Amino acid sequence: MNFIIFSRKCMTSILVLSLILTFGCAEKSAQNADGSSTPDKLSGQTLKMASWEDAPRTKIMDWVDAVTTAGSADFIPEKDRIAVFDNDGTLWSEQPYYFQLAFAIDEIKRLAPEHPEWEKDPSLKALISGDLQGFMAGGEKALLSAVAITHTGMSVDEFDSRVKNWIKTATHPKTGKPYNEMIFQPMLELLDFLRENGFKTFIVSGGGIDFMRAWAEDAYGIPPYQIVGSQLGLTYVDTTASPQLMKTPELAFNDDKAGKPVGISRNIGKRPVFAAGNSDGDYQMLQYTSTGDGARFGLIVHHTDSVREAAYDRESHIGQLNKGLDDASKYNWMVVDMAKDWKVIYPYELNNQ
Amino acid sequence: MNFIIFSRKCMTSILVLSLILTFGCAEKSAQNADGSSTPDKLSGQTLKMASWEDAPRTKIMDWVDAVTTAGSADFIPEKDRIAVFDNDGTLWSEQPYYFQLAFAIDEIKRLAPEHPEWEKDPSLKALISGDLQGFMAGGEKALLSAVAITHTGMSVDEFDSRVKNWIKTATHPKTGKPYNEMIFQPMLELLDFLRENGFKTFIVSGGGIDFMRAWAEDAYGIPPYQIVGSQLGLTYVDTTASPQLMKTPELAFNDDKAGKPVGISRNIGKRPVFAAGNSDGDYQMLQYTSTGDGARFGLIVHHTDSVREAAYDRESHIGQLNKGLDDASKYNWMVVDMAKDWKVIYPYELNNQ
Repeated sequence: MNFIIFSRKCMTSILVLSLILTFGCAEKSAQNADGSSTPDKLSGQTLKMASWEDAPRTKIMDWVDAVTTAGSADFIPEKDRIAVFDNDGTLWSEQPYYFQLAFAIDEIKRLAPEHPEWEKDPSLKALISGDLQGFMAGGEKALLSAVAITHTGMSVDEFDSRVKNWIKTATHPKTGKPYNEMIFQPMLELLDFLRENGFKTFIVSGGGIDFMRAWAEDAYGIPPYQIVGSQLGLTYVDTTASPQLMKTPELAFNDDKAGKPVGISRNIGKRPVFAAGNSDGDYQMLQYTSTGDGARFGLIVHHTDSVREAAYDRESHIGQLNKGLDDASKYNWMVVDMAKDWKVIYPYELNNQ
Repeated sequence: MNFIIFSRKCMTSILVLSLILTFGCAEKSAQNADGSSTPDKLSGQTLKMASWEDAPRTKIMDWVDAVTTAGSADFIPEKDRIAVFDNDGTLWSEQPYYFQLAFAIDEIKRLAPEHPEWEKDPSLKALISGDLQGFMAGGEKALLSAVAITHTGMSVDEFDSRVKNWIKTATHPKTGKPYNEMIFQPMLELLDFLRENGFKTFIVSGGGIDFMRAWAEDAYGIPPYQIVGSQLGLTYVDTTASPQLMKTPELAFNDDKAGKPVGISRNIGKRPVFAAGNSDGDYQMLQYTSTGDGARFGLIVHHTDSVREAAYDRESHIGQLNKGLDDASKYNWMVVDMAKDWKVIYPYELNNQ
């Protein structure tokens, strides 16, 4: 597949599939072809957070040291060490469109032969024929239809199985890599480091909760019960010998913006002490975390690396970051400059060294 | 306070405060005055599940042994060892009325001096003067009003603080014991035993999630993020320097009956392999658990002990158990006869031996 650029904005409020297409990332290249920014002395086996440059690494480790040292003024008891992470753009990439949309697109193509009636819908017909731009021209209605087809009308178990099958074989349109390999190596190391220090790590994402649960445990070591996300409807159907939870199309919970602190309360029940995000959708989560009593850490992943990943922030139509940059110093959020602060972006780069 | 018996049924759908008052428990006595059913050889420090009689104890331990033995046909990987427990009537007592209602009643009395306007409401006025029967005569409207006053219009943190303060000093109308001491010793031992064997233990209760989170970690060793319950509304308010989640009166989620499997999916994301309940409100949770693939265990706490706790089931207007008894053999649920199967009911009885 070629790298796709769309000329039309398209918004919808449902889940992360509220896709707004990105502009200006045609220049990016996910592979670091010349290796120029790849460090030559990664001792990842022993050094904690080895993919981080020294300055941000030290800042994080000093904070963790302060809050985990008994007797420290900033000490946080282990039971209160709750760390929350956005997913899209924070733990894995999100360009050129949310990977959950890639799943929906791939699923529609896979299932199309069984559904000749889909050809009657101009948007779906365009999508099936590979004309993604034509599909997006259908706007919110087309996206809602694509979500309904691929995310509902089946049991939670069946959906889980479909996502698992998809992620085994699907590849990113630009890098050609499996989506679950386009996770951020430095963030994996941060998750490990926090867990080694008694933190419980949670995902709090605008993405669909069932979509993430299908692969996040393997990818990040975060189990389903530590994943918070947007939710469609669920109905318990016990009319057969094997009762199931069926997925239904209504949006039951939108875990984005001010919804994130609500999702945190509903599924976690403690105010976090550490939060990481990358867009203004994470603003309230970061704010809720940082304004609690005691030592807190807020982190923003700033997508500055047009060579190895993608460069976008204030003007981006996906993962837009405006307010977060404006208020980072006010709340003492550490803004991670991906180009400068991360020696490695993706785990598979480690194999190239 | 005297033991209260009501002559009027009263139903409301909100949270566990959908109180339906119990009949026929006047004869019960929570203290085992003569010690007749207390075993004389409890070696609780070393023997696992020491408060259980041999037969049910062996049945549970054999199952745990089978599912945790590598190579066993019934082996369950540790990441899938999800155990869910109802709370009211399963982990602690629920008579003569749900303890969450006791909280609401006590709070209204505590706050009444600051709210002379409450005297204008006949139901609240009755409650404040100690006439609980008069309050209940107000039916669902009175209960909704009591819930709104005591559970909403404040931040989650403030509510948490109020519940914590209440449970430190409040005592049960019959036993005179703190509510968080009226938890079931055999179930504490079961929770411990499962956790020692790699299970994650969750509460899945019709009770209010924020109410339980305030004390359940201390009482059961179950952290807030492993508690699923009914939920009122939440609104994130960031107009001050210290943003808060405010509790609002709408019922956002009713974690009872068919809602329990839904709550399990929303907050846990894995089909449990072990479930324990005590009423028909737990039927679907038990059914959803037992009909999954592989080895499963379902347990029903049957309140048969009119001397040490309370005896009620099919005819009770709180914790009614009909369908669960009818279908226990169909689903292979172990029905625990509290009078016969438990050597001890409450932890404080251990001090009397």
